[in-house]
Order: sequence, then structure tokens, then C-alpha cells
Amino acid sequence: MNYPPKHHQDNDINHMIDVIKTYPLATIISVKDNQPLITHLPLVYKDGTLIGHIDIYNPHAKLLKDNNDVTIIFAGPECYISPSIYSTTQLPTWNYIKVHLKGKVQAIESKAALKQSLITMTEFLEAPEYKYVLEPDNPRLDRNLDYIEMFKIEITNWEGKFKLSQDKKPSDTRAAREELVRVNQESIKQFLDRVFYPSKD
Amino acid sequence: MNYPPKHHQDNDINHMIDVIKTYPLATIISVKDNQPLITHLPLVYKDGTLIGHIDIYNPHAKLLKDNNDVTIIFAGPECYISPSIYSTTQLPTWNYIKVHLKGKVQAIESKAALKQSLITMTEFLEAPEYKYVLEPDNPRLDRNLDYIEMFKIEITNWEGKFKLSQDKKPSDTRAAREELVRVNQESIKQFLDRVFYPSKD
Repeated sequence: MNYPPKHHQDNDINHMIDVIKTYPLATIISVKDNQPLITHLPLVYKDGTLIGHIDIYNPHAKLLKDNNDVTIIFAGPECYISPSIYSTTQLPTWNYIKVHLKGKVQAIESKAALKQSLITMTEFLEAPEYKYVLEPDNPRLDRNLDYIEMFKIEITNWEGKFKLSQDKKPSDTRAAREELVRVNQESIKQFLDRVFYPSKD
Repeated sequence: MNYPPKHHQDNDINHMIDVIKTYPLATIISVKDNQPLITHLPLVYKDGTLIGHIDIYNPHAKLLKDNNDVTIIFAGPECYISPSIYSTTQLPTWNYIKVHLKGKVQAIESKAALKQSLITMTEFLEAPEYKYVLEPDNPRLDRNLDYIEMFKIEITNWEGKFKLSQDKKPSDTRAAREELVRVNQESIKQFLDRVFYPSKD
């Protein structure tokens, strides 16, 4: 089977962990009755596991337990690659970095563990400046504990999809890399102005 | 059912179409035997349908036909929202724009239609500068036609997840908006330096 092309796969687990830590908002997919349930949540990586929390009213919450199967996507940067950036003749394509994981998920019932994991996750997300610290005695935190559930995913399968023009001559691979950096620095302001206009005070 | 919160949902179809056109690299999910198959491909929107192409060697290709169910995610910008950006007391959160669609997918067998749709897609992706034009007589294009299949998705359900701090006081909603713009302009260069180092010439 000629798919996916080997040069677009990266099996270096350290690279995949870097994606997970740099782009922690995961897409979590469970399946029930042949239908996917999809939720977007930040996950914290630790020793082959992923920790997260879900709104108890989210129908997906009922599936994040009991050693159920779960699929997780972490999405790094992406961009359209115009053939105009290459020195050789190529067809248009999209480059991207995605990590696909499979795992088994358990619910963690302890409210003490839930509270600590929220504090740990906040510390992770606030790095490196730590402009905010989630304190254990924060009253909003305690009120929230009844409305979220904690889960832990044991990762059973790792797949690194690093589609980055690796099969081109080195100067073209570097051109594609520069394009990825450039596109990912474009401002989203014009897009936001079209789809989201919060009211003035 | 108190989920998802109504203020985080946007039912304006024009906003969702803007996300689809601005962030066309979609995550396509099919389910077979209770397992998800996931492929990341650009899709072109037209009159309630989405057109795409898939590598014939991709096992997912076999499911993109026969009026099968399909779920599609389009992912707009996202960012961690530190409570430090607000003037009021809040808990940490992630903001994001995602569009979730459900549809029915058919294979389009005609090679002429496939060729034209690749030219149309390239024109769409090259806008507005059109530095590259995919010509009908491009020899690489003709050689490729045997290795990809075209599909067309009829959208049956639209869901706009615009989680953007809409329930906060307006000055805090605007602060979250500015944070989304700021974070999405940070350079990805350091991250790429850690996970992808193409060889020198």
C-alpha cells in the first residue's frame, strides 16, 4: 500500500510530543452507533497519557470513560503551497503538521484530582510568563468542579503526519518551510472583522 | 440540555461559509465498523456542496461515495485566553472558531470533471494574486488524474462553534478578540526549528 507516503510520516515521538505541547487544543473523536462525537478541548501530556476535562452537559462526556476507544487530533501549522514558490515544476498542494493518536479513556472521579489537574493545566498554558496563577482557594474554581468531569487517555497508537514537501530538492523544501512560516504570521484581523463583531460599550 | 451554550453558537450561514473559504483545509471524518477514518484535504464550497479530491491509495477513498455519511470540520483561529487579559475575574479558557458539517458524499467518476475541479480549486487557492495558473495542458496534471478521485459532499447540517467570550462584558469580549489576533500572529519559526530541520544543499 503506497499510502501515506513515508516521507510525509514522522515517527519521532519527541517531535509529536512537541506538537502536542505547542498546539494543545485537541480534537477528540469518539464513535457511538457509527456516528462520531467531536469535542475541542486542551489536553495536557504526561508520560504517554493525556489529561483533560469536559462539560458534564456535553453528550460526549458519557463516552470518555470505561476504557472506551478514542481518537485525538493535534493540529500544528498548515498552508497552501503555490507552485510559484518552487524553483522546479510542481503541482499545487497543502502542507501541514498533524498528530493522530489512538487511546483508551478512563474517567477520573476524584474531585481533588480534578482540581489539581485544572491548576496543573493552567500552569502549563500560562508558561512561560505566568501572568495568571489558578489558586486552590479560588471560589469560581470550586463552583466549577461540579460541572466538569476529568478524564485520562492512555495513548496506544501514535502517528505523525508531517506533510512538508520533504520529497523535493532541498532548496524547494526550504522554500516551502519559509512559506509555512510566512503564511502563519498573516493577520487574521480582516477575517474576524467579517465574522465576529462584538458590540461597542 | 444546557450544551452547547447558545452564545457560543453562530447560526449565520454566511459566517460559516467565510470560515470554509478562509480556512479550506478540512478534516473529513467517515466511520466504518465504529472506527473513524480521518483525512485532511482542501475543499471548495459551492451552493451547499463541497468538492474535493483524494489519493486513490488512501483507504478513506473507498468511503467517499455511495451517499455515505460524512462529517467535516473546518478550523478557524484559536488561542488560550489567560484570565490576565480580562478586567473582570474569570477562569482560564480556550477560544476558537470551528465549523462542523454533516453531509452525504458521492464519487464523481468523470475525469473531465476531475480535471476542471482541480483547475477551479487552484484558482480559488491562488486568489487574489494568482501567481500560478494550473493550465489544462499541464502534463503533470494529466498524469495525476489516474491517482486521485473526485468527490462531492451535499451539506445536510451546519453548526458554527464560535467560542469567543461573547458572554463577558463588551470590553472583555473585545480584549479576548485582540488576544486571538495577537496570538495568531506569533511566529512559528521556533517551533519548526525544533521539529523539522530540512537538510542543507
